[in-house]
Amino acid sequence: MELLKVDTLEQAREKLMQAVGDGWLTTCEVPVVEALDRVLAEDIYGELDIPCFRRSMVDGYAVQAKDTMGAGESIPVFLQVIEDVAIGTRACSTIGPGTCAYVPTGGMIPEGADSCVMVEYCEQFDEDHIAVSQSVSSGRHVVEAGEDSRKGALLLKKGTRLRPQEIGALAAEGLTCVMVYEPLKISIISTGDELTAPGEELQEGKIYDINTYALAALAKKHGFMVSNTRTVPDVYDALRSAILEAKDESDIVVISGGSSKGKKDMTALLVDELSDPGVFTHGLALKPGKPTILGLDQKSRTLMLGLPGHPVAAMAVFEMLPVWLKRQQEGEQEKLPVPAVLNGNVPGTPGRKMLLFVELTKTPEGYLASPVFGKSGLMSTMTRADGYAVVELNQEGLKTGDRIWVQVF
Amino acid sequence: MELLKVDTLEQAREKLMQAVGDGWLTTCEVPVVEALDRVLAEDIYGELDIPCFRRSMVDGYAVQAKDTMGAGESIPVFLQVIEDVAIGTRACSTIGPGTCAYVPTGGMIPEGADSCVMVEYCEQFDEDHIAVSQSVSSGRHVVEAGEDSRKGALLLKKGTRLRPQEIGALAAEGLTCVMVYEPLKISIISTGDELTAPGEELQEGKIYDINTYALAALAKKHGFMVSNTRTVPDVYDALRSAILEAKDESDIVVISGGSSKGKKDMTALLVDELSDPGVFTHGLALKPGKPTILGLDQKSRTLMLGLPGHPVAAMAVFEMLPVWLKRQQEGEQEKLPVPAVLNGNVPGTPGRKMLLFVELTKTPEGYLASPVFGKSGLMSTMTRADGYAVVELNQEGLKTGDRIWVQVF
Repeated sequence: MELLKVDTLEQAREKLMQAVGDGWLTTCEVPVVEALDRVLAEDIYGELDIPCFRRSMVDGYAVQAKDTMGAGESIPVFLQVIEDVAIGTRACSTIGPGTCAYVPTGGMIPEGADSCVMVEYCEQFDEDHIAVSQSVSSGRHVVEAGEDSRKGALLLKKGTRLRPQEIGALAAEGLTCVMVYEPLKISIISTGDELTAPGEELQEGKIYDINTYALAALAKKHGFMVSNTRTVPDVYDALRSAILEAKDESDIVVISGGSSKGKKDMTALLVDELSDPGVFTHGLALKPGKPTILGLDQKSRTLMLGLPGHPVAAMAVFEMLPVWLKRQQEGEQEKLPVPAVLNGNVPGTPGRKMLLFVELTKTPEGYLASPVFGKSGLMSTMTRADGYAVVELNQEGLKTGDRIWVQVF
Repeated sequence: MELLKVDTLEQAREKLMQAVGDGWLTTCEVPVVEALDRVLAEDIYGELDIPCFRRSMVDGYAVQAKDTMGAGESIPVFLQVIEDVAIGTRACSTIGPGTCAYVPTGGMIPEGADSCVMVEYCEQFDEDHIAVSQSVSSGRHVVEAGEDSRKGALLLKKGTRLRPQEIGALAAEGLTCVMVYEPLKISIISTGDELTAPGEELQEGKIYDINTYALAALAKKHGFMVSNTRTVPDVYDALRSAILEAKDESDIVVISGGSSKGKKDMTALLVDELSDPGVFTHGLALKPGKPTILGLDQKSRTLMLGLPGHPVAAMAVFEMLPVWLKRQQEGEQEKLPVPAVLNGNVPGTPGRKMLLFVELTKTPEGYLASPVFGKSGLMSTMTRADGYAVVELNQEGLKTGDRIWVQVF
């Protein structure tokens, strides 16, 4: 292991993509009813014209539009009613000049008709005739077969995260199952002699374990499956066996708690030992997030990620690396950031990209983003924030009035 | 039941809040590890100062800052090391003039010290002395006890949706459980002789059932619990018993599929019959979403909601009413909308509020929002959209260049 391979975020990401390669993700078929928020692993082509038949958008009479030309309240047009189409059934008649058929909303428009007149403009005249008091143009109140989506056309692209409307679109095609990506399995190891599990009594000098809980929640939020969490003391052998166990049961092993020099070295050594070809990023030019370690074991294709011990830094790096990697691999689009105007001056961090936590305030012109200041690593800087902006490496800081993009979390 | 109680969205919402009253939601205690995305039903006050003790932010030596005054590379200051504080243990010494203690990142700062010098600026001089080559100011690299959050102070407000960082903040306090709102139980009834379950063969004139799937996904997305879904034919008795069963097992009964006049009347009659005091909103001045029916049964406190049959309209009303109601009841803040500039002209809809579906394009200045046009009710208008804007009742439409707020879905 070469020491001090400090990378920019972009370098680390590129190495990560190369190390992981293609086919890292596996796919599975899930019922459409359970597919909300899953990401499509296949292109979906229309199986049917939607709608399958010409449908009426109103309760009314299917007519030939030209028959209604000039119709009005004082000069109605008389048409013969030759069918009463029931919802869910085939229309049997063929509408010719002078004839019409009743069709309910969603019902099938008979052959020959090209439009509908709403019942509000039709009056029963005699047993089989109505008086129409409105002129309609061709196509009025009719949805053509295939107007929503066409048989054979690309309906949903691979990489689409399925929202309720996409679930609806899949149901409309009659699909019951769909191919999506399996969630990546993740193990979280928190190291530290100072860590105490919530609920237990806190002894002097110790703190409650935050990272296990915050990182598990973050992983869950982004669609990872947390297969295990472990808290281990700062003992080489304990950490070693925890990593080995975790490697067996997950795609990503996250080790957090390497902020102090001794711990950082121990994590780096173990990641290097237990992955082949070993550590490829040792330090990230990111604030917060410097003490980050990346390695990938080619044989088991397990990504090993050493995160900073500060919870805020650990979460920031988790967003910037595994969450980013998952999206890249799934081909999912970036979550839309929010444009805002900065309300405060922010000094640059030479040679490091910075995540700036901000609070958003709505104004008639858009958002004002006020930086949430506080010492690095304070969780309150993150609970007070609505999101973060990225201040680039070579930017000399930002000033009040600058336009920024905020990723809301 | 008075017929035609067409309400504006605001009127319907006010009636809804009054009908539901206080105490509609129930609360429950959940483990912090499972509390992601749940909404707090209690204010959380700090149980501890966080951190509980003064911690070092670096690997270094805890010193009295005034001892380092004037120190530099050419003129180091010599200090006696009187303790090596291990992580997770109590610091025992008291730092006085001329003395210091080693403290790792996250370790306890001993009494008397007010700052830390990073190890990078310290050199071992003899067995128990170091040479310090940097001057630090008081407070440097130290997090004070309570600097992140204070014992007794409001940590998280009732109504907060718990993000990963809030889970972390709860863990930091040592909390294992937290009081949140129980999800509202919802039953979805889709009516229509034309409906066919996905997977079955589609006969002429029939369509696949979309609403059951799309509405269940939408409900799930917004934190409701879907207790049951039912598809029933357009038969009075069948719908009546479905509603009765659903009423027993849920807080909200959603009946979708009342776009045609006959169906609409049947739903309205049944909601009126099966709720006491009956229907209070019959029609909504909203596009899409006009054929909406609202009733609340006071005894069982069940909300009954008749939705339009068009899937897009049904989903729009679901967002505008039950989702809105849930947020109001939980005291959760509005999801932050995205500001955008409209890229297209949109005619107004006199007397009706309108939901305008838009596609967002990122530009250096912000977002352009292009209206997604298409006949009302086409699912493709919603799958192509990134979100929606609300065009107010009395607005004479919108034009290219207008600023709008887009709720991303």
